[in-house]
Amino acid sequence: MRLLLINPNISESVSELIAAEAKRTASAGTEISIVTAPFGVAYIETRFEALIGAYAVAQLAAEHYSSVDAIVVAAFGDPGLPALREAIPVPIIGMSESAFATATLLGQRFSIIAISSRISAWYRETVERCGLEGRLASIRTLDKPLANISSVQTDQAQQLLALCESAVREDGADVLVIAGAPLAGLARQIRDRLPVPAIDGVSCAVAQAEALAALSPRHATAGSFAPPPVKPHRGLPDSLAGLLETGRARA
Amino acid sequence: MRLLLINPNISESVSELIAAEAKRTASAGTEISIVTAPFGVAYIETRFEALIGAYAVAQLAAEHYSSVDAIVVAAFGDPGLPALREAIPVPIIGMSESAFATATLLGQRFSIIAISSRISAWYRETVERCGLEGRLASIRTLDKPLANISSVQTDQAQQLLALCESAVREDGADVLVIAGAPLAGLARQIRDRLPVPAIDGVSCAVAQAEALAALSPRHATAGSFAPPPVKPHRGLPDSLAGLLETGRARA
Amino acid sequence: MRLLLINPNISESVSELIAAEAKRTASAGTEISIVTAPFGVAYIETRFEALIGAYAVAQLAAEHYSSVDAIVVAAFGDPGLPALREAIPVPIIGMSESAFATATLLGQRFSIIAISSRISAWYRETVERCGLEGRLASIRTLDKPLANISSVQTDQAQQLLALCESAVREDGADVLVIAGAPLAGLARQIRDRLPVPAIDGVSCAVAQAEALAALSPRHATAGSFAPPPVKPHRGLPDSLAGLLETGRARA
Amino acid sequence: MRLLLINPNISESVSELIAAEAKRTASAGTEISIVTAPFGVAYIETRFEALIGAYAVAQLAAEHYSSVDAIVVAAFGDPGLPALREAIPVPIIGMSESAFATATLLGQRFSIIAISSRISAWYRETVERCGLEGRLASIRTLDKPLANISSVQTDQAQQLLALCESAVREDGADVLVIAGAPLAGLARQIRDRLPVPAIDGVSCAVAQAEALAALSPRHATAGSFAPPPVKPHRGLPDSLAGLLETGRARA
Amino acid sequence: MRLLLINPNISESVSELIAAEAKRTASAGTEISIVTAPFGVAYIETRFEALIGAYAVAQLAAEHYSSVDAIVVAAFGDPGLPALREAIPVPIIGMSESAFATATLLGQRFSIIAISSRISAWYRETVERCGLEGRLASIRTLDKPLANISSVQTDQAQQLLALCESAVREDGADVLVIAGAPLAGLARQIRDRLPVPAIDGVSCAVAQAEALAALSPRHATAGSFAPPPVKPHRGLPDSLAGLLETGRARA
Amino acid sequence: MRLLLINPNISESVSELIAAEAKRTASAGTEISIVTAPFGVAYIETRFEALIGAYAVAQLAAEHYSSVDAIVVAAFGDPGLPALREAIPVPIIGMSESAFATATLLGQRFSIIAISSRISAWYRETVERCGLEGRLASIRTLDKPLANISSVQTDQAQQLLALCESAVREDGADVLVIAGAPLAGLARQIRDRLPVPAIDGVSCAVAQAEALAALSPRHATAGSFAPPPVKPHRGLPDSLAGLLETGRARA
Repeated sequence: MRLLLINPNISESVSELIAAEAKRTASAGTEISIVTAPFGVAYIETRFEALIGAYAVAQLAAEHYSSVDAIVVAAFGDPGLPALREAIPVPIIGMSESAFATATLLGQRFSIIAISSRISAWYRETVERCGLEGRLASIRTLDKPLANISSVQTDQAQQLLALCESAVREDGADVLVIAGAPLAGLARQIRDRLPVPAIDGVSCAVAQAEALAALSPRHATAGSFAPPPVKPHRGLPDSLAGLLETGRARA
Repeated sequence: MRLLLINPNISESVSELIAAEAKRTASAGTEISIVTAPFGVAYIETRFEALIGAYAVAQLAAEHYSSVDAIVVAAFGDPGLPALREAIPVPIIGMSESAFATATLLGQRFSIIAISSRISAWYRETVERCGLEGRLASIRTLDKPLANISSVQTDQAQQLLALCESAVREDGADVLVIAGAPLAGLARQIRDRLPVPAIDGVSCAVAQAEALAALSPRHATAGSFAPPPVKPHRGLPDSLAGLLETGRARA
Repeated sequence: MRLLLINPNISESVSELIAAEAKRTASAGTEISIVTAPFGVAYIETRFEALIGAYAVAQLAAEHYSSVDAIVVAAFGDPGLPALREAIPVPIIGMSESAFATATLLGQRFSIIAISSRISAWYRETVERCGLEGRLASIRTLDKPLANISSVQTDQAQQLLALCESAVREDGADVLVIAGAPLAGLARQIRDRLPVPAIDGVSCAVAQAEALAALSPRHATAGSFAPPPVKPHRGLPDSLAGLLETGRARA
Repeated sequence: MRLLLINPNISESVSELIAAEAKRTASAGTEISIVTAPFGVAYIETRFEALIGAYAVAQLAAEHYSSVDAIVVAAFGDPGLPALREAIPVPIIGMSESAFATATLLGQRFSIIAISSRISAWYRETVERCGLEGRLASIRTLDKPLANISSVQTDQAQQLLALCESAVREDGADVLVIAGAPLAGLARQIRDRLPVPAIDGVSCAVAQAEALAALSPRHATAGSFAPPPVKPHRGLPDSLAGLLETGRARA
Repeated sequence: MRLLLINPNISESVSELIAAEAKRTASAGTEISIVTAPFGVAYIETRFEALIGAYAVAQLAAEHYSSVDAIVVAAFGDPGLPALREAIPVPIIGMSESAFATATLLGQRFSIIAISSRISAWYRETVERCGLEGRLASIRTLDKPLANISSVQTDQAQQLLALCESAVREDGADVLVIAGAPLAGLARQIRDRLPVPAIDGVSCAVAQAEALAALSPRHATAGSFAPPPVKPHRGLPDSLAGLLETGRARA
Repeated sequence: MRLLLINPNISESVSELIAAEAKRTASAGTEISIVTAPFGVAYIETRFEALIGAYAVAQLAAEHYSSVDAIVVAAFGDPGLPALREAIPVPIIGMSESAFATATLLGQRFSIIAISSRISAWYRETVERCGLEGRLASIRTLDKPLANISSVQTDQAQQLLALCESAVREDGADVLVIAGAPLAGLARQIRDRLPVPAIDGVSCAVAQAEALAALSPRHATAGSFAPPPVKPHRGLPDSLAGLLETGRARA
């Protein structure tokens, strides 16, 4: 399968982290590619940054979907989802929802380990959007400004490990979700030092995309994920305009 | 006060409906203006259309906030909120959340009356985002394609009235929220024929904006609605880039 | 509009605090009056005291509603609501619900700052009655017996400020609700020293009452807020007996 | 044990129904007495009527608690509870909460069968106050005005039976709670004709009061059910004033 | 009435603790007997141990139900319930659900005091299965390995008392549920030293079983607690096979 | 990977349905085997039957886990989970939870299509155990006794299709979960006739087991899914006794 990862942020260095972890996880037959948002911010910590990232993902997904089998929105918080699931004809999933779905099969309650305290409101609301607040043990975050987003997992290795341990001992986490694209690959590195399963959004998204490929579900033509009803539009980038028009054919 | 309404959709005729109802509600000292999205769709029924509308609102809000005292996002479902509340330095509120806040002071459970069955998933998720699912009695919608979005309230007058009555008699609605900008002004017209209070998103938003003006709350500099932390960005429209830069000064 | 505030407690000094803050908030055209409960306790901290306050409010509301346009129940916890909303023909709202409704337009989660630890169960249950537990960040309270209820906001100024700051830094509050009639006016005084919007139950209630006046919703004749069905009664104060009889005419 | 039932309503005929059913349930050693509210309405269907009933119960409980071992608030909806639990030094329980507690030991979800459609909002809110909405299958009610409150169970026998059957077949009820003092004794009469356990608020309250007597729990001196803190009061009936003063001694 | 208690664990010494407390609570006319699981573990701390205990209880209940009037599953967490409620023709209740039902009549929120930190996930899920998470203040547990399960209440007396006090002071517990069969009888011993009502699973189960006896509800023949539909089975112990066959007759 | 499916029921014919669908879904490198419960019932519709099935699964999982890489509990409702996740050292997942996890990536709300009306309580409680009630649109079931469990999907083909369509049109299902091992393979057959994605518990479980294999999470040694603490046991089948002893080594 051809799997496209879309980094909703402008950081090429983070895209490299993502792609590397995706390739480590992917099956032999899965071809991984990644694109980076042409506009936006370095990484998403807030709802407003997610709004921008969502629009960037929408354009990239609209431009590229026809040449791939599935798409991963490669930022925790899943900017653009579930909206894009209506419009994009191939399966499109997010890092967060993939990690949460996977976590539900490994334990009862999971904690999220994240890179900044500001990010926790956005992540908590992502959990709530997924209807999984009853399975969230806690969100624990680094609390210092980040010197370098692409090296945070080495720069803050000890602190991240300590957050994981606190989540297990104090918050009752059965599973640890190491969140955020800048932490891609960390779960794999530290999992043997942790007392509960630790998972990574990128690798979960790749594994879940492959699981969906095995099931090959059809795209909805009814219900709330059918393509948006055709109606007048104006001023949209060609990619989005085309997507809206395409809906007409698929509906 | 100077109050700007932003129609996240491209329909000028709906903007006129909105502005007319806003002016009927506004206090003597409130100056109403409205802008219409330069890009997007005719009206929002789905999450994907809301994603597009959110980006349009973001640009318009960024362009205009400095010359107004408060902004209303004038589409039910509040596209762009609560993200914009982080970034825009003046109070910014939505039609849905304003109607819900008002409804909570008039009864225990409210029903939403809407223009299309497709729209109900998006509205239900809006209620859930507001944490108010415990106060939602039902969502009742027209179920036929709309011939003309700007005349739906006259074209479908009888059907809309019947939906209201069913919501009260069968669903236990204490309050009726007549939703959607294309229905702006309808609540005012039919309220004397209804057995419970009926409210309108536009007029509630205007009244709530005036209420906030009376309280003049400060903008957050901490917590999850402080301006997004300053970080690298690229390729954004000037309005949004400026907004991100301004955050630096306000934080 | 003529707006009556009813203090469900016997403290005239607290009524003065309330009236002063109400007048600071009210629009030019709003005429504020206040009545104090002729029986009851000095201030409400418990469910039982609220039961007494509710009965006092009921009598005062029944006696005075016909000469005013709207009524505010001026104690946090809203004793008598939503029961009175059934029987009183003019809009009647409470300090808590008004503050919560306003808070929902300023941020995602709010904390309540209150005057005694005993009061927190009653306040938490008030939030739950409003169905807003998902938007409550925390309740933080003073924990010492109060020497003087009418001077608590000056006597405990530093401690109250510290509670506000803890709610933001530790509990994730986006908005601070400074609760309780004895704290009327405090939010206005300290808001510039706080990093998030801080609101006051009295001023929110006045602003929301004015918002309702702008919308002039009708009183329910069906649903669960219609006047109670007419049935035999006995031994009631004239005001309440009259109210029950009046229901007959309005239904 | 001496068990006092308090009818919060003025209907002596309903008090007789209640007392008769209570005596049928009570153990040999339990002495049943009942008092009827000296003021109030014929029966409670709404929040406002419950507010009045709560005040009547408060006075009767305050007058009589010292000569009994436990008190039952004998109206469905439990007017005055949980407020009275703070102030009354003997165990005081309600018909609703007793029926719900009992129902939770007989099945997973219960339906409430009630005498008027208007009553269902008040009952649903009672279930929510008890935090048991997850165990409520439905509320089904008669929908015609009642000719005679004391003979409703014979006048409407067939309709009540039909409501029970619908609750089981269509709503998934595992247990039927035959609600409301006017229906006291009906569950006992029809239970052999019903396919699931059917329980009655009065008999559940008597059985639960005896269960509490067997456990003889102490009254709280800390937490949210300790007596209200002593503070100034004014203008209260002697019974309530005395109760507030007594709190001082017990705290 | 003849009341059988089933200890789902193999500890005879704990059965003695249970029986002793049951006899202290039971009415004069109640005859108490107890059986101990012939297979299983010493005490249940985890979901897996509860799975084993559930199967042991099922066999014992199937063997003995015909000679008793009611059955108590005498381990906190109620292994086997609510499944056994479908199949066993006499009332069968658990220690947890009985304690929770009783607690709901004594206050708004309860805390559970337990013997090991590992046990808290299993207890929290038990509360959730009962739909009572909104009334749970906290679960507080001993955190050291237990030297001797039958003497834990004396060995750890001070620590248990301290947990109780913390639950009241810090967690807002209105009622204390002293959980777990190894703690049977402790609530009775320490309740006068505690500032809120403290209850015990064994005594609550006995009192609730007597309450059910007073109400003598019928066994369901419809709904989700009717006997399992008759269908082929194989390889089951005689007791369980007989129970499944019996369902045929009762349905 | 070697993947073992355990049918908790005694129906060999259903095991064949399960194995066939599992093989259709599995990747080239996945080796599928299946075992059938040596004791139990023909298929699980109730909590009591699930209790029996759970014990059968426990023994089979204990006997076989050491020669496989992952285990699937192949009955909807996941009997034995999450208990077995504590004790079994390899990943063990259920049909329900796998289908729910997959459904969350395909839409917002799913409906469950099932084979008997009696089964719906057990399924609803399974959804609640997973904390996913907010994402459940409905459960729709056949309502006639089944002549032959292994041919239900052909015997009732039209009715099952009609249930699917009603779930989409009337209940707002975005995804259809065709539940129950007797329906294994049906989703694959009818999905092109349905307007939304339709998934099957068996194939979802296989795909999710492969996804977990790609992630190779470690087994917990802390938290609530660590092996049960070692303690005395007695009378257990060798397989379970061995599992409890093994926990000692792994902890």
